[in-house]
Amino acid sequence: MKIIEDIDEMHHYAMQLRHEGKAIGFVPTMGALHEGHLSLMRQAREASEHLVVSIFVNPAQFGPKEDYKEYPRDPRGDTGMTRTADVDTLFTPSPSAIYPEGYRTYVDVEGLSGVMCGRTRPGHFRGVATIVLKLLNIVRPHKAFFGQKDYQQTVIIRRMTKDLHLGVDVMVLPTVREADGLAMSSRNQYLNPEDRRSAAILYRSLQEARSQFDKGEHSAERLREAILGTLKYEPSVQLEYAAIVHPETLEEVREAGQGTVIAIAAQIGRTRLIDNILL
Amino acid sequence: MKIIEDIDEMHHYAMQLRHEGKAIGFVPTMGALHEGHLSLMRQAREASEHLVVSIFVNPAQFGPKEDYKEYPRDPRGDTGMTRTADVDTLFTPSPSAIYPEGYRTYVDVEGLSGVMCGRTRPGHFRGVATIVLKLLNIVRPHKAFFGQKDYQQTVIIRRMTKDLHLGVDVMVLPTVREADGLAMSSRNQYLNPEDRRSAAILYRSLQEARSQFDKGEHSAERLREAILGTLKYEPSVQLEYAAIVHPETLEEVREAGQGTVIAIAAQIGRTRLIDNILL
Repeated sequence: MKIIEDIDEMHHYAMQLRHEGKAIGFVPTMGALHEGHLSLMRQAREASEHLVVSIFVNPAQFGPKEDYKEYPRDPRGDTGMTRTADVDTLFTPSPSAIYPEGYRTYVDVEGLSGVMCGRTRPGHFRGVATIVLKLLNIVRPHKAFFGQKDYQQTVIIRRMTKDLHLGVDVMVLPTVREADGLAMSSRNQYLNPEDRRSAAILYRSLQEARSQFDKGEHSAERLREAILGTLKYEPSVQLEYAAIVHPETLEEVREAGQGTVIAIAAQIGRTRLIDNILL
Repeated sequence: MKIIEDIDEMHHYAMQLRHEGKAIGFVPTMGALHEGHLSLMRQAREASEHLVVSIFVNPAQFGPKEDYKEYPRDPRGDTGMTRTADVDTLFTPSPSAIYPEGYRTYVDVEGLSGVMCGRTRPGHFRGVATIVLKLLNIVRPHKAFFGQKDYQQTVIIRRMTKDLHLGVDVMVLPTVREADGLAMSSRNQYLNPEDRRSAAILYRSLQEARSQFDKGEHSAERLREAILGTLKYEPSVQLEYAAIVHPETLEEVREAGQGTVIAIAAQIGRTRLIDNILL
């Protein structure tokens, strides 16, 4: 496995691979890799002739009071994991190379960035869109792979790649879960054992909504009530939002249907977790 | 000369040219081509194996009260001119293809977009950066050519291509002028004969500042006074700004030096014109 830190080196290498006709697959990550990332890498591996994984904890997507500094970092573990996953190139640029002195350019995907997680995390999706655009321009993949867990992020990235004619296929793969249903996340390691147990209620509440939907309940208000009703069994879980939305516009719907997305965010102790399902 | 309207066709053609190892040069324009554009095309022609010119009057860079509808359009004349200039591909996408229903993505180059022309044209440079990014992603040139007349635009585009790792060389070529010094612009055709004569004062005022500078006057305040003193001979010319700025940050300087930029914008009748010089 080749490890590249330098942006120009990565870009030139990618252009060379393209020139050789290699199909480049790309999995951008913030490191602290877990089974969810491994699942992305495995599927990207199958779909690519050359697989690039990046590890970059992106300061631009963290708010001033958020956990940029504390965000889990495990370079040694990550390198081991990427080797296991048969990654061809691990790209690990430095923050000062990605955002050098004088850096000024940001991308906004309007409308989609201010709802849901965007309400409590102003600037978050601007940071996400910007770093993804930069990484796609450096790595020049044919396909880029993202987890469905960050649903809003995937919608914004799809929209951006289309609007900006990036010519990259955005592949979104299902959320990988722990045995009790908790969506895998690097932030799960913040949870103490008690909160970790409580956290399973998030997915259970989504399952409860799905079960109501399957029984014929299509009212978004009723489905939201099913979520709230389930969550109240774990008072330590503070719901931030439960959104029942159109899968592309992220607009709230009154009647859920095939393809509607139910997404939730909640605070457990000092940890913020998100999850979602597609009906 | 190949004429392409379809975005995907242009993109695929560009990718094919790149795959064949052809050096692509690109001159993006808003049409109503004049000698200034021809000069860009001639130099781009020499520097490229395949020369693409685009014509697209970009609605996103016009304010609601600006001249998007009246902006001069001359498709037949433009096509003739591009043939004369030995252009290989003329790319003429439609507004509805560039900004389809649901379009939401915009690029901001912070700091550089709010000063000078950005003060009276809020959103203008956001529109410029966005369309240039889109066109560069579609046409995938090795080099893109811009005129120095739109100095602030060139600074913003240079910054954006660097910040977003576009791997495009931004080439800025000198302003082409009429016999009396007026910078060539598609908007010059708005001027009635009297205003057209008055308009020559813009460049004369810049020359006066340069002459003062050459004589040893480095104070930005004095140089600005030289400009204002010259402009007052044409009371129909209403100065919007005279900015004496750093060539990359566009920050106002107190002392001008080698490379300092003097840029002006003025209203003559209902026509807004800009010009600049590098010391």
